[in-house]
Amino acid sequence: MTKPFGEFELIDRLSRRLKLSARTILGPGDDCAIIARPRTRHELLTIDSMIEGVHFKHEWFSRQPEALGERALTVNLSDIAAMGGTPAACLVNLAVREGLTMGFFERLYEGLQAAAGAARVDIVGGNVTSAKALAITIALVGDAPARPLRRDGAKPGDDIFVTGTIGDAACGWRILGGELKARGTTRDFLTGRFRNPTARIEAGRRLATMKSASAAIDVSDGLTQDLGHIVKRSGVGAEIDANTVPVSAAYRALMGADLGLALRGGEDYELLFCMRAGRSEHALTTRLGVPVTRIGRITAAGRVEVRGAGASIGRGGWDQMLSDSRRGRGGR
Amino acid sequence: MTKPFGEFELIDRLSRRLKLSARTILGPGDDCAIIARPRTRHELLTIDSMIEGVHFKHEWFSRQPEALGERALTVNLSDIAAMGGTPAACLVNLAVREGLTMGFFERLYEGLQAAAGAARVDIVGGNVTSAKALAITIALVGDAPARPLRRDGAKPGDDIFVTGTIGDAACGWRILGGELKARGTTRDFLTGRFRNPTARIEAGRRLATMKSASAAIDVSDGLTQDLGHIVKRSGVGAEIDANTVPVSAAYRALMGADLGLALRGGEDYELLFCMRAGRSEHALTTRLGVPVTRIGRITAAGRVEVRGAGASIGRGGWDQMLSDSRRGRGGR
Repeated sequence: MTKPFGEFELIDRLSRRLKLSARTILGPGDDCAIIARPRTRHELLTIDSMIEGVHFKHEWFSRQPEALGERALTVNLSDIAAMGGTPAACLVNLAVREGLTMGFFERLYEGLQAAAGAARVDIVGGNVTSAKALAITIALVGDAPARPLRRDGAKPGDDIFVTGTIGDAACGWRILGGELKARGTTRDFLTGRFRNPTARIEAGRRLATMKSASAAIDVSDGLTQDLGHIVKRSGVGAEIDANTVPVSAAYRALMGADLGLALRGGEDYELLFCMRAGRSEHALTTRLGVPVTRIGRITAAGRVEVRGAGASIGRGGWDQMLSDSRRGRGGR
Repeated sequence: MTKPFGEFELIDRLSRRLKLSARTILGPGDDCAIIARPRTRHELLTIDSMIEGVHFKHEWFSRQPEALGERALTVNLSDIAAMGGTPAACLVNLAVREGLTMGFFERLYEGLQAAAGAARVDIVGGNVTSAKALAITIALVGDAPARPLRRDGAKPGDDIFVTGTIGDAACGWRILGGELKARGTTRDFLTGRFRNPTARIEAGRRLATMKSASAAIDVSDGLTQDLGHIVKRSGVGAEIDANTVPVSAAYRALMGADLGLALRGGEDYELLFCMRAGRSEHALTTRLGVPVTRIGRITAAGRVEVRGAGASIGRGGWDQMLSDSRRGRGGR
């Protein structure tokens, strides 16, 4: 089934399918890409990697390689969204192992191009290298808003909000890995939230126009851990009420009252943000165009405290959460 | 010997050592970096990856991790050099395997910072992930010159030049891998050319100011293969005289009259470029500040022809060279 091919043939084939906007002066095939950046003076840069056996298993995507490509870009788009920026162009580094077909990569790139097209991002260049495990590393460039949403602006008294529902992707990951059992629509919804996450680009852009927004991050490492990043960078504390963390009906169906994965699971790519006190969930939901839930407030305590969940969040406090980065995320 | 550490601890420790210029509005530690790009409208983007077991073995750098960090940036800087650009900022994705110490990565980052400092590049962000093999992927952003040196501008009649000497790094690679034997200064010089290559940034910038420069590429895949990229993109042919390809005294000492590695080996990171006919080697050497040698001319033949070497280039024609990308490079 496996058709052998060279790296040059692969990158040529994949590059041929790309749709580039007028912003791209020179696309794939030279030493560098050339892009025009006329409208912004401040630029956003981010890089992220998805590695087989670490972040995903091949069989989770083997029947839907498009979703793998789409997801690889989405996790990067989410970083731009968390700054309130507008993504513009990306570079793709593909580490290819034996046993995967040209057709697999063509479909992966179709998904990548679909996600790029939806976000108006040009895939301006790529690099293919051989490796022992499949890995997709994407560097993404975007335009910064006038007031980027940083992690370091939270102040005591600010309210803490999240978009969407939290913990679904962590359930999906464990269902795919066989650690949790689920069937039917519950299974489909939760695995879909892991395989096909949505980057909250438009919500982030709208949030960045609000002066009362003080800090933001995307939920990639897990709610309490990502809140910990804001707390650390802002030099504040945080108190959240576990019972207000928004979980989906599918999450409830699978996990009951156990909020452990909502609090500590990652990969949701929802926005977690802080606002000067006084904004209602309803007003924010309307303004940002996605469901918004208040989950707590910023304190001066220097740590993240989780209230109201009793034993339902399982053992382990904040310190354990900090070191619980099993899927190997760190930094940007 | 191995001290366990988490990804967050590692990226924090590594980020602390970075020296950032005023261009960086926000460095490591947020969802994205923010950089100011006030002076250029056209930007260069490139990405490249070095993977343990594919591009290098750990033991080649275990006593000198700084060189691994330096080299990882240099191969990217070389892509900017080949466009005649000025590098500005980079993102580093580090895939970390078990068995490597925090000290190893600190020294790797020291080398990375040294190379970045020398090239006036800010390391604005990083991502650390766990993996089965060590991999360093760097995305680099630079300022394009007014007339970037592309691969697609060569015309029949143009002269073909290279900087420096060619084939040294391929010898070094094979000495380190045990395929070739060398001792003393010959060994040190050739392995040094593999481990510590130089990106020809200043030469590329000067070349881009010359209207007679029609095309350029860096020698990363091998001389004939990289010339093949220019030929293909420009829709021309090329004829080179093997006996004019500049090789070092160390190359001669090891390989004698065999020019195979000079013609087909890669990783030299010298510049290969085309000029409208009439420029002398001497004038170019003075102008670019590095030794420049004429090795042939652009034709209309649609292929790369190597003359004058007889049997000394070994078997295998152009087609074989094209598929001979053992170290797994492709695309950008």
